[in-house]
Amino acid sequence: MSPIRRLGSHARWSDVVIHRGVARWVEVAEDRAVDFSQQTRQVLQQVDDTLQSLSANRSSLLQMLVFVSDLAHMDQFNAVWDAWVPPGAAPIRACMQAGLAGGCLVEVIIEAAVSE
Amino acid sequence: MSPIRRLGSHARWSDVVIHRGVARWVEVAEDRAVDFSQQTRQVLQQVDDTLQSLSANRSSLLQMLVFVSDLAHMDQFNAVWDAWVPPGAAPIRACMQAGLAGGCLVEVIIEAAVSE
Amino acid sequence: MSPIRRLGSHARWSDVVIHRGVARWVEVAEDRAVDFSQQTRQVLQQVDDTLQSLSANRSSLLQMLVFVSDLAHMDQFNAVWDAWVPPGAAPIRACMQAGLAGGCLVEVIIEAAVSE
Repeated sequence: MSPIRRLGSHARWSDVVIHRGVARWVEVAEDRAVDFSQQTRQVLQQVDDTLQSLSANRSSLLQMLVFVSDLAHMDQFNAVWDAWVPPGAAPIRACMQAGLAGGCLVEVIIEAAVSE
Repeated sequence: MSPIRRLGSHARWSDVVIHRGVARWVEVAEDRAVDFSQQTRQVLQQVDDTLQSLSANRSSLLQMLVFVSDLAHMDQFNAVWDAWVPPGAAPIRACMQAGLAGGCLVEVIIEAAVSE
Repeated sequence: MSPIRRLGSHARWSDVVIHRGVARWVEVAEDRAVDFSQQTRQVLQQVDDTLQSLSANRSSLLQMLVFVSDLAHMDQFNAVWDAWVPPGAAPIRACMQAGLAGGCLVEVIIEAAVSE
């Protein structure tokens, strides 16, 4: 079996799991006492931080599955997203509404290519 | 890092992202002014078209995560699906209800094996 | 193209699809005439069974995307989960509420590393 590498291994989950050149992780805003746009900015900043810890960057992103608590926020999401996503190197993206726990207004499931 | 190949690279997302022999993409019906069954047929036709552009076929599908706006449509989904999915070579499949944007009644997140 | 291996290939879906060292599958409780905690225990037992059939184990898990029919059950989910997840080798995990079909109270989308 190809080795599995984990970053931030907690009792309930690992922050990042890396296997065969693909890193998988989930982001929610660390501070959730703020509004949707601020949570979105945090999530994307946290993605940047995780990418940096993986020696990767936004162009390494393969997939961003975005779940929002209310589709009425999609315009706000896109405003933050459009300023963030790398031109010519965007990941695939799906945006859907789901029930989110713990005060999350946005939750993103990410896959990125990393070196081995 | 293994190279990333993208098909249909737009400002907001890429249509398809290919990395290490796996293609990832998201399909929603291009014409959404139609009913659920017609959207489903379009989505599966678009999957066929994307597979063809990847020199792949339905037997190359690894995963289809299906989100519908209303689970009441599942019988209609399955009627279209059952006529489409390749015997003996089906992908894994999950079907769930989520809030979908932009008049989508069905949205599918796909992974397929492709040659490198 | 790297070969695709399937376990439990049904007309509508395959139980498990394996490609390039990653197994993908979906679990719902086989007996759904029971409450949330019992469905969760079944799902995780079924994951164990599938891992065993893949000559893998809980430490091989890369991703668990958990969809529950009601977020009010998250405490119950975590009680069962915390006793199950391997210390120091947890997968990434997302938990969200979505509409689930067929009496499912919990549905999990799984990726695990397997030998080739």
